[in-house]
Amino acid sequence: MSDIAVSGNVLSTINSPEDLRRLSPDKLPELCADIRRFLIASLSDNPGHFASSMGAVEITVALHYVFNTPYDRIVWDVGHQAYGHKLLTGRREAFAGNRKLGGISGFPNPDESEYDTFSAGHASNSISAALGMAVASKLKGETPRRNVVAVVGDASISGGLAFEGLNNASITPNNLLIVLNDNDMSIDENVGALNSYLAHLTTSRLYNDIRYKLFKFFKRHHLVSDRRKGALLRFNNSIKSLLSKQQNLFEGLNIRYFGPFDGHDLPTIVRVLNDIRDMEGPRILHLRTVKGKGFAPAEANPAAWHAPGRFDPESGKKITSEKPGPQPSKYQDVFGDTLLELAENNPKIVAITAAMSSGTSVSTMQAKIPERVFDVGISEGHAVTFAGGLAKDGMRPFVAIYSSFLQRAYDHIIHDVALQRLPVTFCIDRAGLVGEDGATHHGAYDLAYLRTIPGIIVAAGRNEEALRNLMYTSQTDNFGPFAIRYPRGAGSSIDWRKPFRAMPVGKGERLTEGSAVAVVTIGTIASEAAKAVSMAREKGIDAAHYDMIFLKPVDTEMLREIAELACPIVTIEDGTVEGGLGSTVTDWLADNGYKRSVTRLGIPDRFIPQATPAQQREMCGIDSGSILKAIEEAVQTTK
Amino acid sequence: MSDIAVSGNVLSTINSPEDLRRLSPDKLPELCADIRRFLIASLSDNPGHFASSMGAVEITVALHYVFNTPYDRIVWDVGHQAYGHKLLTGRREAFAGNRKLGGISGFPNPDESEYDTFSAGHASNSISAALGMAVASKLKGETPRRNVVAVVGDASISGGLAFEGLNNASITPNNLLIVLNDNDMSIDENVGALNSYLAHLTTSRLYNDIRYKLFKFFKRHHLVSDRRKGALLRFNNSIKSLLSKQQNLFEGLNIRYFGPFDGHDLPTIVRVLNDIRDMEGPRILHLRTVKGKGFAPAEANPAAWHAPGRFDPESGKKITSEKPGPQPSKYQDVFGDTLLELAENNPKIVAITAAMSSGTSVSTMQAKIPERVFDVGISEGHAVTFAGGLAKDGMRPFVAIYSSFLQRAYDHIIHDVALQRLPVTFCIDRAGLVGEDGATHHGAYDLAYLRTIPGIIVAAGRNEEALRNLMYTSQTDNFGPFAIRYPRGAGSSIDWRKPFRAMPVGKGERLTEGSAVAVVTIGTIASEAAKAVSMAREKGIDAAHYDMIFLKPVDTEMLREIAELACPIVTIEDGTVEGGLGSTVTDWLADNGYKRSVTRLGIPDRFIPQATPAQQREMCGIDSGSILKAIEEAVQTTK
Repeated sequence: MSDIAVSGNVLSTINSPEDLRRLSPDKLPELCADIRRFLIASLSDNPGHFASSMGAVEITVALHYVFNTPYDRIVWDVGHQAYGHKLLTGRREAFAGNRKLGGISGFPNPDESEYDTFSAGHASNSISAALGMAVASKLKGETPRRNVVAVVGDASISGGLAFEGLNNASITPNNLLIVLNDNDMSIDENVGALNSYLAHLTTSRLYNDIRYKLFKFFKRHHLVSDRRKGALLRFNNSIKSLLSKQQNLFEGLNIRYFGPFDGHDLPTIVRVLNDIRDMEGPRILHLRTVKGKGFAPAEANPAAWHAPGRFDPESGKKITSEKPGPQPSKYQDVFGDTLLELAENNPKIVAITAAMSSGTSVSTMQAKIPERVFDVGISEGHAVTFAGGLAKDGMRPFVAIYSSFLQRAYDHIIHDVALQRLPVTFCIDRAGLVGEDGATHHGAYDLAYLRTIPGIIVAAGRNEEALRNLMYTSQTDNFGPFAIRYPRGAGSSIDWRKPFRAMPVGKGERLTEGSAVAVVTIGTIASEAAKAVSMAREKGIDAAHYDMIFLKPVDTEMLREIAELACPIVTIEDGTVEGGLGSTVTDWLADNGYKRSVTRLGIPDRFIPQATPAQQREMCGIDSGSILKAIEEAVQTTK
Repeated sequence: MSDIAVSGNVLSTINSPEDLRRLSPDKLPELCADIRRFLIASLSDNPGHFASSMGAVEITVALHYVFNTPYDRIVWDVGHQAYGHKLLTGRREAFAGNRKLGGISGFPNPDESEYDTFSAGHASNSISAALGMAVASKLKGETPRRNVVAVVGDASISGGLAFEGLNNASITPNNLLIVLNDNDMSIDENVGALNSYLAHLTTSRLYNDIRYKLFKFFKRHHLVSDRRKGALLRFNNSIKSLLSKQQNLFEGLNIRYFGPFDGHDLPTIVRVLNDIRDMEGPRILHLRTVKGKGFAPAEANPAAWHAPGRFDPESGKKITSEKPGPQPSKYQDVFGDTLLELAENNPKIVAITAAMSSGTSVSTMQAKIPERVFDVGISEGHAVTFAGGLAKDGMRPFVAIYSSFLQRAYDHIIHDVALQRLPVTFCIDRAGLVGEDGATHHGAYDLAYLRTIPGIIVAAGRNEEALRNLMYTSQTDNFGPFAIRYPRGAGSSIDWRKPFRAMPVGKGERLTEGSAVAVVTIGTIASEAAKAVSMAREKGIDAAHYDMIFLKPVDTEMLREIAELACPIVTIEDGTVEGGLGSTVTDWLADNGYKRSVTRLGIPDRFIPQATPAQQREMCGIDSGSILKAIEEAVQTTK
């Protein structure tokens, strides 16, 4: 770490929030500056999520200053914002190991600290979880009262789960405080003064006077009764929302609303939090923040600084460690370019992303054909059902969603697409082990849970060209739902821009002929397997390698060829071993009366922590070395 | 069918909506009366969903009268309301086969009619699906303009998916019309006159004048700009919502709102629909209806008349066909009574239901300990994450959700419960084949998709006592997530109220000793298997029967005992064969080097239509006869 970080003399004295709460208020801005310096110094060298945590520094300091953590609970939604929280809760030293094997998680992790109250890898869950905690505390009659705070971003709050939580918070007795960290980049500065005026009104005696007078006025005119106090509250809220062009989700939900305030104005946040801390009932505090705050390059282009990689802490210039010469493309580039190419040739193709336009590279098509690209925000369930409607009336939707987030849409795939055999192409990004994002982000379950769905096609190409051709194939006929999974990051090939070739659905490929052991893979793990097969062959083991390509419908001819070899079989997948490729093979063998030795390699039945993808493959025993060992053992055992 | 139905002379002339559209408006009330008589006559004899369709008669007639179906699309949310729609769209005769094998589905089913535009077994999907259709039509530039209408109930609209759809509808160019069929039973009659006044205003010139003047007023006072027209619309909406204590979800969403109107006032609905039919942009029409309308007993107690079973069409007296003497309890009764008993002894137990309090019998505990029961409405995702929060802070949540609806919460079980090993008991009702509700409602996937989740316990008892003891067991220690599945309907035992007995987690039971074939089951399908085993034994086949009880962790000792028998194995489950019990057995055998013949019986890899549960078991080959055949074949083949 550079000396920039060490020079922060306030932060270095904070080993827990109790230390923080002993500071006088005037020391807090200095602490915020220290945290920002620390984040810049650390993240410029050891990459992670940058802009969100930079924007949440004051919120973080204020919350730990005002609330009695960890007795009071802070539930972070989207853990991207929680680095400052980690620094203040005893993990300043550990932060050097952020997102690394054996180090700390990049997201709040209850296994790591009592200050991390709930998992926060998937968006929109904080309100529901925090409501549960608030209700639990009330039921247990705890004294002193335990305060529970959910800190949710303006993107997360668009998820259906967050809405379900809000909707329920309004009817359940609880003292939940929801802090909306709103870093919308299109803040309208014109209304800033008025907003601030109204914001002040909200907690002031004057405002309450006005509210009461309004209430009496309406009552006198028989427009409301005592029973309808809630409606009046909604009325007040809507007056405020009138002055903002931003959508206010809290109107009508009978939740007390405070704000918007400047989320970087620390004295104000501390004052308001103190004012509303002990109020009864659910409350929302709306804070406006700037993503990347305090680092000019990030403020200027917050999207690019969400997770910027390494950079120069002075200039903000990004540091690329790429070797000279042409680089293999990322699978995301292959997907994005292919999608555009297909869409240019097929006017029925539309693309849907759930708030991951650049992450998935749907942005490539969006730039050229915006009218056929739909970013629906964080709402994976809607993305899939919306695709179902589009497909029902003749379009060809390509839905690009990260594997672990698509778990939110399992029912929608079944009920709104597969049941009606609708031609939706699911482009499942970040399938398999994802590396530094860790346990919450692996695409470990897609093969297994998609396999349960009748009539769906489930495919994974072993390289860039196969991904391209699978995407092409999916729109050449009405196959019904067609799922294609592919991993995060770079492939191996430089030249994948070849003419499209339709791939026969349900047909695998034999890559290497052999008779001593049959290695069966699906997807890009084929490259690790190929290395192992090649090593095994060098050692004199006549290993075969089969690429299934399709998990469903499975290539029964190829499985029969494999079974007839009468040799041991080793299956390898970068997905859970509970129900995926290995299970498909053992099931098919049983159903067809073959008794073969099968070794099933894949992600084991546990959660895999953060590390590099290579380290994770080793942990899971699906790196080339482990595969070679499994091949040798399989051959040995059956000798 | 009785002569009541035949006497309807208008309905009998309607063979398609085109016939309907030829009627003069004054004939429509008669048609509505005919439909109601038909529904009463038919459903009193052949049970189905009653009260919802009775309440939606005028809406149905008006929609098909005003819109050019099937070119215009009607997307029904919660198919319960769509019986009238079926009668008007050529299925009057077929209605006698409603919910029966070979007959028509009780829900809209695109395979059945071009008028059924989308699957409607799971709530809250209509807005997303209809938005997809509306966008598809716009993209294709269809002429004449194709109108798309989503008809959604006030319960369905609380689902996160519906909110995601609304949220997205507001920012996507489309002409979607959302009809809110609001049959809330607590309609406030006091504000009726005022509502109706405002309702009239909404579509009148006067209202638009007022709106414009208000806009100019605010503009003059620099409170809004042209850009912020949307905010003004929200303001108008909130004035309306002020006068109703009901929550208005549309405020703030920039969707034109019309209503509320009386959903039984046919001339008004037709007039308003004609007024707003060709408007541009998304619109919401809010109609208030009475569930069970037109049948006094149902109006008086709509919840009990949701799906009343057989009844006397004159008196409304329910007809029970039960034989005299004590009857076996329904699994729901066992669950409900056991939950209460456990909760009375363990103050940490809380129960959560997602709008299925009576359906699941959570109502039993709700009646006695309301403060520890949470009906969160149709929001399965929230139900699970909320449970996670409760469990995190020391409570013991029991979440009771129907198996097919729990599919909505797959990710929440992984991310918000299992990842943190939180002690949540999932009580999975309606597991397995559910009978008349058909393809959308089977609990076919739970075993397979739960198996993919690390650390979860997945169990199913073979009878009432086992369900009870599993529920008891789940709260005796911190096991983390604990899923217990059980079917719809009556069990076999009369006397299940025995003292609780903890069941060892991960331990199965050998029910019958044998060595010629090992039958392995999980859950209540054990009773069909036991019959088959007993028949097989009578035929001289030394069949064994093992009840796994736990799919996860699986009883490896018992599996070893079975494998060591070195006889063929037959697995039986009332869940999909893709990844459930059968797969678990073939995987375990492979992992442990056993080569055995395994016959996997279960729900095959396709969607199973409506029929009785017994018929469905036969279709799937998991009735006692089919099982016996499989046992005989297994023994034969390996001889």
